[in-house]
Amino acid sequence: MKFAVSALLAAAAVTLAGPASAQFAKPETAIKYRQSVMFVMAQHFGRIGAMANGKVPYDAKAAIANAELVATMAKLPWPAFATDTEKHSHEVKPALWKEPAKFKEHADKLEETSGKLLAAAKTEKLEDLKAAFGETARSCKSCHDAYRKD
Amino acid sequence: MKFAVSALLAAAAVTLAGPASAQFAKPETAIKYRQSVMFVMAQHFGRIGAMANGKVPYDAKAAIANAELVATMAKLPWPAFATDTEKHSHEVKPALWKEPAKFKEHADKLEETSGKLLAAAKTEKLEDLKAAFGETARSCKSCHDAYRKD
Repeated sequence: MKFAVSALLAAAAVTLAGPASAQFAKPETAIKYRQSVMFVMAQHFGRIGAMANGKVPYDAKAAIANAELVATMAKLPWPAFATDTEKHSHEVKPALWKEPAKFKEHADKLEETSGKLLAAAKTEKLEDLKAAFGETARSCKSCHDAYRKD
Repeated sequence: MKFAVSALLAAAAVTLAGPASAQFAKPETAIKYRQSVMFVMAQHFGRIGAMANGKVPYDAKAAIANAELVATMAKLPWPAFATDTEKHSHEVKPALWKEPAKFKEHADKLEETSGKLLAAAKTEKLEDLKAAFGETARSCKSCHDAYRKD
């Protein structure tokens, strides 16, 4: 029942940003979705970071599993930054809505670096993982610095 | 920096429920994690439901992509139901903590049905998708009925 209702709302949603925002029942749902994705991604990225930073022992299998999740999650949040979420997006700097092409560059960069992170995990060499972790972390940070309010 | 601190907290976390809860910095983090996973899963499951229920046109490729995400997310939340989250888990019925074996059966059932959902999506037959969607939805519901507060 709940799913049927959600689908109905989704179909009826105003789509200021093209088809993407039609995926969500309402702007608040899109915001909760992207925040949920980011949170899950950060947890798994943090587990790789713990290995990269020597806080926990390196476990090649766990690194791959976490990197797979990071790479999967990195593809998801972007349609949820639809323009109809702007007025509800209290954690987003106004710049994001003014420079969609630049924002897309950041998004593409995360997808690229998280893809490299997965490839690095699969080499099962800690040094590769460390380097790719650092590159991915810089990708997170540059986007957060540009668009996330403190 | 933030990742290093999280890792440190994770390493220091009290592990009342064995190694699982050590994955999270604190009980609240585990709760936010499992809620985030459930929310992302529900969004993608809902998109399949919209097709299964005829609310949006059937799109085999989209069904597969969504089913892949559902199957991926279905594997994640369980360690986040660690016993040290109990007193912070206001949306969970006490039964969950009293019958871990039964709860695990529900978890296994979701992993099984969501695996079948993905297989059904890959047949690219809407009838298969509908049947598997129904079975997965019943799996969600039986666990929610047993353990989620209204």
